[in-house]
Amino acid sequence: MNAIVLFSGGIDSTTTLAIALREGYRVSALSFDYGQRHRIELEKAAAVLKQFRVSRHLVFKIDLRQIGGSALTADVQVPKSGVEGSSIPVTYVPGRNLIFLSLAAAYGEVHGAYDLFYGANVIDYSGYPDCRPEFIHALENTLNTGMKAGVEGRRFTIHAPLLQMTKADIIKRGFELGIDFTNTHSCYDPLPEGRACGECDSCRIRAKGFRDAGFEDPAAVIRKTQ
Amino acid sequence: MNAIVLFSGGIDSTTTLAIALREGYRVSALSFDYGQRHRIELEKAAAVLKQFRVSRHLVFKIDLRQIGGSALTADVQVPKSGVEGSSIPVTYVPGRNLIFLSLAAAYGEVHGAYDLFYGANVIDYSGYPDCRPEFIHALENTLNTGMKAGVEGRRFTIHAPLLQMTKADIIKRGFELGIDFTNTHSCYDPLPEGRACGECDSCRIRAKGFRDAGFEDPAAVIRKTQ
Repeated sequence: MNAIVLFSGGIDSTTTLAIALREGYRVSALSFDYGQRHRIELEKAAAVLKQFRVSRHLVFKIDLRQIGGSALTADVQVPKSGVEGSSIPVTYVPGRNLIFLSLAAAYGEVHGAYDLFYGANVIDYSGYPDCRPEFIHALENTLNTGMKAGVEGRRFTIHAPLLQMTKADIIKRGFELGIDFTNTHSCYDPLPEGRACGECDSCRIRAKGFRDAGFEDPAAVIRKTQ
Repeated sequence: MNAIVLFSGGIDSTTTLAIALREGYRVSALSFDYGQRHRIELEKAAAVLKQFRVSRHLVFKIDLRQIGGSALTADVQVPKSGVEGSSIPVTYVPGRNLIFLSLAAAYGEVHGAYDLFYGANVIDYSGYPDCRPEFIHALENTLNTGMKAGVEGRRFTIHAPLLQMTKADIIKRGFELGIDFTNTHSCYDPLPEGRACGECDSCRIRAKGFRDAGFEDPAAVIRKTQ
């Protein structure tokens, strides 16, 4: 069976990819070049896919800066040392997951892939509403009423295998699946040479995840020795 | 109140725009440069907006040819003299309305506009599943669970005022609202100089609509005299 995996090259989408492959899906990876300030993730994503020998990879260009409204795409400072999960953060990109999953469904329909994998999780979601189960169910219903495939009797399924997992659980599951996390990228606000800032929400959630899981972050080990 | 009107510059979206304005909304028009072979519609759309004195207009660039799968964006011939409504036609663009409405919601959220207007209609929809009421309701629910605005207690509403109208009804309503249809564009496969082909589904539905409504199509009158 064919599947589309939304793939940013971070810990969550890499673990999601490994799960989809382990479940026997023939995977096409879909990444987005959306004007993110952390575009380095696209290079890292290609490196991770090479390790997994996934050759079907579309990097879809869609410049969300045309809309604005987020620290991830606009000229707004990414917050450092904030309080996780206190409210919807400025790094929320309006409608991002909805837009990305809609494009994944369109891409899937063209290529006969009705299983869409997506690495959302509720626990460490930093308050993003588009990482909640209610959203996923509502969108699944929308796809099955609004897409040709749904109308013709094929069913879209949105798989979010990490939904109820903490970052530490995800990292542990990733190690069980044999993932080398060296090339995975998490930072929202990388330094000019592409290194993680170590201070944004995403870096702090990553560091805490490895600590709680009891593993060293191979990317951090490499950074320290550089 | 602010509203976003999905605006292609055709008969349906022009009538929808006129309805939103008549209802007192402060309108931002949103068009899409999506790699359609009938890009002439973008120029015509600007001309129509000028007539309505709507100055807020975003033409969002998103190249759906990256995904393919439609005669409107790919190198597939647009069918001529087909049978309307017999099944989902090759001019269906996978997920187009879902993608466009998702982007409209994101744009609306950034600008405080939670009323989204969209010119879908069930009767002359050429079999597109994303023009059905079930789809609209499902997506509205998705927006209100997945968008920040929905979570924070504001409600997105998708207005589809033409949903149950025939093309003839829409044209009659448009004339009542004082619309000059001269610049509205419908053709899926325009001739090199931008003129309508007169043979595609969309041209035939338009011609029949004017005939049934008992009006002359001002664009056709101009074409004849050129």
